[in-house]
Amino acid sequence: MQKLGLFETERFFCDVYCLLPQQSQKPHAHAGADKIYVVLEGTVDATIGDDQVALGAGDCVLAPAGRAHGVANNGSTPAALLVFMAPRP
Amino acid sequence: MQKLGLFETERFFCDVYCLLPQQSQKPHAHAGADKIYVVLEGTVDATIGDDQVALGAGDCVLAPAGRAHGVANNGSTPAALLVFMAPRP
Repeated sequence: MQKLGLFETERFFCDVYCLLPQQSQKPHAHAGADKIYVVLEGTVDATIGDDQVALGAGDCVLAPAGRAHGVANNGSTPAALLVFMAPRP
Repeated sequence: MQKLGLFETERFFCDVYCLLPQQSQKPHAHAGADKIYVVLEGTVDATIGDDQVALGAGDCVLAPAGRAHGVANNGSTPAALLVFMAPRP
Protein backbone atom coordinates (compact mmCIF):
# COMPACT_ATOMS: atom_id res chain seq x y z
CA MET A 1 0.00 0.00 0.00
CA GLN A 2 1.25 3.47 -0.87
CA LYS A 3 0.54 6.57 1.22
CA LEU A 4 0.90 9.95 -0.46
CA GLY A 5 0.74 13.03 1.73
CA LEU A 6 -1.46 15.81 0.36
CA PHE A 7 -1.80 18.23 3.27
CA GLU A 8 -0.51 18.38 6.80
CA THR A 9 -1.18 21.06 9.39
CA GLU A 10 -0.85 21.28 13.15
CA ARG A 11 -4.36 19.88 13.36
CA PHE A 12 -4.70 17.12 10.75
CA PHE A 13 -3.26 15.31 7.80
CA CYS A 14 -4.88 14.42 4.49
CA ASP A 15 -3.31 11.57 2.54
CA VAL A 16 -4.14 9.46 -0.49
CA TYR A 17 -3.82 5.71 0.09
CA CYS A 18 -3.37 3.51 -2.97
CA LEU A 19 -4.14 -0.18 -2.61
CA LEU A 20 -3.52 -2.70 -5.35
CA PRO A 21 -5.75 -5.78 -5.45
CA GLN A 22 -5.18 -7.87 -2.29
CA GLN A 23 -3.37 -5.05 -0.49
CA SER A 24 -4.76 -3.92 2.84
CA GLN A 25 -4.22 -1.75 5.88
CA LYS A 26 -4.59 -4.04 8.87
CA PRO A 27 -7.09 -2.94 11.51
CA HIS A 28 -5.53 -0.68 14.13
CA ALA A 29 -6.77 2.06 16.47
CA HIS A 30 -5.70 5.56 17.45
CA ALA A 31 -6.56 6.87 20.90
CA GLY A 32 -7.85 10.42 20.67
CA ALA A 33 -7.78 10.77 16.88
CA ASP A 34 -10.61 10.33 14.38
CA LYS A 35 -10.15 9.24 10.77
CA ILE A 36 -12.31 9.39 7.65
CA TYR A 37 -11.83 7.22 4.57
CA VAL A 38 -13.25 8.52 1.28
CA VAL A 39 -13.11 6.22 -1.74
CA LEU A 40 -11.86 8.02 -4.85
CA GLU A 41 -11.76 5.00 -7.15
CA GLY A 42 -12.07 1.25 -7.00
CA THR A 43 -13.67 -0.58 -4.11
CA VAL A 44 -12.54 -1.50 -0.62
CA ASP A 45 -13.89 -3.44 2.31
CA ALA A 46 -13.60 -1.30 5.43
CA THR A 47 -13.58 -2.67 8.97
CA ILE A 48 -14.75 -0.28 11.67
CA GLY A 49 -14.88 -1.99 15.05
CA ASP A 50 -17.09 -5.04 14.60
CA ASP A 51 -18.65 -3.68 11.41
CA GLN A 52 -17.61 -4.45 7.86
CA VAL A 53 -18.79 -2.34 4.96
CA ALA A 54 -18.14 -2.44 1.21
CA LEU A 55 -17.31 1.00 -0.17
CA GLY A 56 -17.19 2.26 -3.75
CA ALA A 57 -16.25 5.58 -5.32
CA GLY A 58 -17.85 8.47 -3.48
CA ASP A 59 -18.51 6.47 -0.32
CA CYS A 60 -16.97 7.51 2.97
CA VAL A 61 -16.83 6.18 6.50
CA LEU A 62 -15.81 7.50 9.91
CA ALA A 63 -13.48 5.63 12.24
CA PRO A 64 -13.98 7.30 15.62
CA ALA A 65 -11.09 7.59 18.05
CA GLY A 66 -10.24 4.35 19.79
CA ARG A 67 -12.12 2.10 17.40
CA ALA A 68 -10.15 -0.41 15.33
CA HIS A 69 -10.28 0.31 11.62
CA GLY A 70 -8.69 -0.90 8.42
CA VAL A 71 -9.31 -1.26 4.70
CA ALA A 72 -8.72 -4.07 2.22
CA ASN A 73 -8.85 -4.08 -1.54
CA ASN A 74 -10.50 -7.39 -2.32
CA GLY A 75 -11.38 -6.30 -5.84
CA SER A 76 -9.54 -6.78 -9.12
CA THR A 77 -8.65 -3.15 -9.82
CA PRO A 78 -6.55 -0.61 -7.89
CA ALA A 79 -8.28 1.48 -5.25
CA ALA A 80 -7.52 5.01 -4.09
CA LEU A 81 -8.72 6.55 -0.84
CA LEU A 82 -8.63 10.03 0.55
CA VAL A 83 -7.82 9.79 4.26
CA PHE A 84 -8.32 12.59 6.82
CA MET A 85 -7.12 12.24 10.37
CA ALA A 86 -7.26 14.73 13.24
CA PRO A 87 -5.27 15.35 15.19
CA ARG A 88 -2.32 14.01 13.25
CA PRO A 89 -0.20 11.47 15.09
CA MET B 1 -25.91 26.92 -0.83
CA GLN B 2 -26.80 23.79 1.09
CA LYS B 3 -24.63 22.25 3.81
CA LEU B 4 -25.21 18.63 4.70
CA GLY B 5 -23.45 17.25 7.77
CA LEU B 6 -21.82 13.88 7.24
CA PHE B 7 -19.66 13.40 10.32
CA GLU B 8 -18.92 15.40 13.41
CA THR B 9 -16.60 14.48 16.26
CA GLU B 10 -14.93 16.40 19.06
CA ARG B 11 -12.08 17.08 16.66
CA PHE B 12 -13.60 17.87 13.25
CA PHE B 13 -16.61 18.02 11.02
CA CYS B 14 -17.06 16.69 7.51
CA ASP B 15 -19.86 18.22 5.45
CA VAL B 16 -21.06 18.18 1.85
CA TYR B 17 -21.66 21.62 0.36
CA CYS B 18 -23.98 21.84 -2.64
CA LEU B 19 -23.77 24.96 -4.80
CA LEU B 20 -26.09 25.65 -7.67
CA PRO B 21 -24.78 27.75 -10.55
CA GLN B 22 -24.03 31.27 -9.28
CA GLN B 23 -24.15 30.24 -5.64
CA SER B 24 -21.09 30.90 -3.50
CA GLN B 25 -19.64 30.86 -0.04
CA LYS B 26 -18.17 34.30 0.53
CA PRO B 27 -14.53 34.42 1.62
CA HIS B 28 -14.12 34.24 5.38
CA ALA B 29 -11.44 33.06 7.79
CA HIS B 30 -11.25 30.89 10.91
CA ALA B 31 -8.55 31.53 13.48
CA GLY B 32 -7.00 28.26 14.60
CA ALA B 33 -8.92 25.93 12.29
CA ASP B 34 -7.88 24.47 8.94
CA LYS B 35 -10.28 23.50 6.17
CA ILE B 36 -10.02 21.32 3.08
CA TYR B 37 -12.37 21.50 0.10
CA VAL B 38 -12.63 18.41 -2.13
CA VAL B 39 -14.67 18.69 -5.32
CA LEU B 40 -17.00 15.73 -5.76
CA GLU B 41 -18.78 16.97 -8.89
CA GLY B 42 -19.07 20.08 -10.99
CA THR B 43 -16.53 22.89 -10.88
CA VAL B 44 -15.86 25.73 -8.46
CA ASP B 45 -13.55 28.70 -8.25
CA ALA B 46 -11.86 28.69 -4.86
CA THR B 47 -10.31 31.72 -3.24
CA ILE B 48 -7.54 31.05 -0.71
CA GLY B 49 -6.01 34.28 0.53
CA ASP B 50 -4.89 36.17 -2.56
CA ASP B 51 -4.96 33.07 -4.76
CA GLN B 52 -7.77 31.94 -7.00
CA VAL B 53 -7.91 28.44 -8.39
CA ALA B 54 -10.38 26.58 -10.62
CA LEU B 55 -11.21 23.14 -9.24
CA GLY B 56 -12.91 20.19 -10.88
CA ALA B 57 -13.96 16.75 -9.67
CA GLY B 58 -11.18 15.11 -7.67
CA ASP B 59 -9.34 18.36 -6.99
CA CYS B 60 -8.79 19.54 -3.44
CA VAL B 61 -7.33 22.58 -1.74
CA LEU B 62 -6.24 23.51 1.77
CA ALA B 63 -7.34 26.71 3.50
CA PRO B 64 -4.90 27.08 6.40
CA ALA B 65 -6.06 28.64 9.67
CA GLY B 66 -6.45 32.40 9.49
CA ARG B 67 -6.45 32.64 5.71
CA ALA B 68 -9.58 33.91 3.98
CA HIS B 69 -11.26 31.26 1.83
CA GLY B 70 -14.42 30.81 -0.16
CA VAL B 71 -15.86 28.97 -3.14
CA ALA B 72 -18.09 30.05 -6.02
CA ASN B 73 -19.89 27.97 -8.60
CA ASN B 74 -19.46 30.01 -11.76
CA GLY B 75 -20.31 27.05 -13.97
CA SER B 76 -23.60 25.96 -15.48
CA THR B 77 -24.12 22.75 -13.50
CA PRO B 78 -24.49 22.04 -9.78
CA ALA B 79 -21.33 21.48 -7.78
CA ALA B 80 -20.79 19.32 -4.71
CA LEU B 81 -17.87 19.62 -2.31
CA LEU B 82 -16.65 17.53 0.57
CA VAL B 83 -15.51 19.91 3.31
CA PHE B 84 -13.33 18.87 6.21
CA MET B 85 -12.52 21.27 9.05
CA ALA B 86 -10.55 20.76 12.25
CA PRO B 87 -11.13 21.65 14.93
CA ARG B 88 -14.85 22.19 14.42
CA PRO B 89 -16.11 25.64 15.34
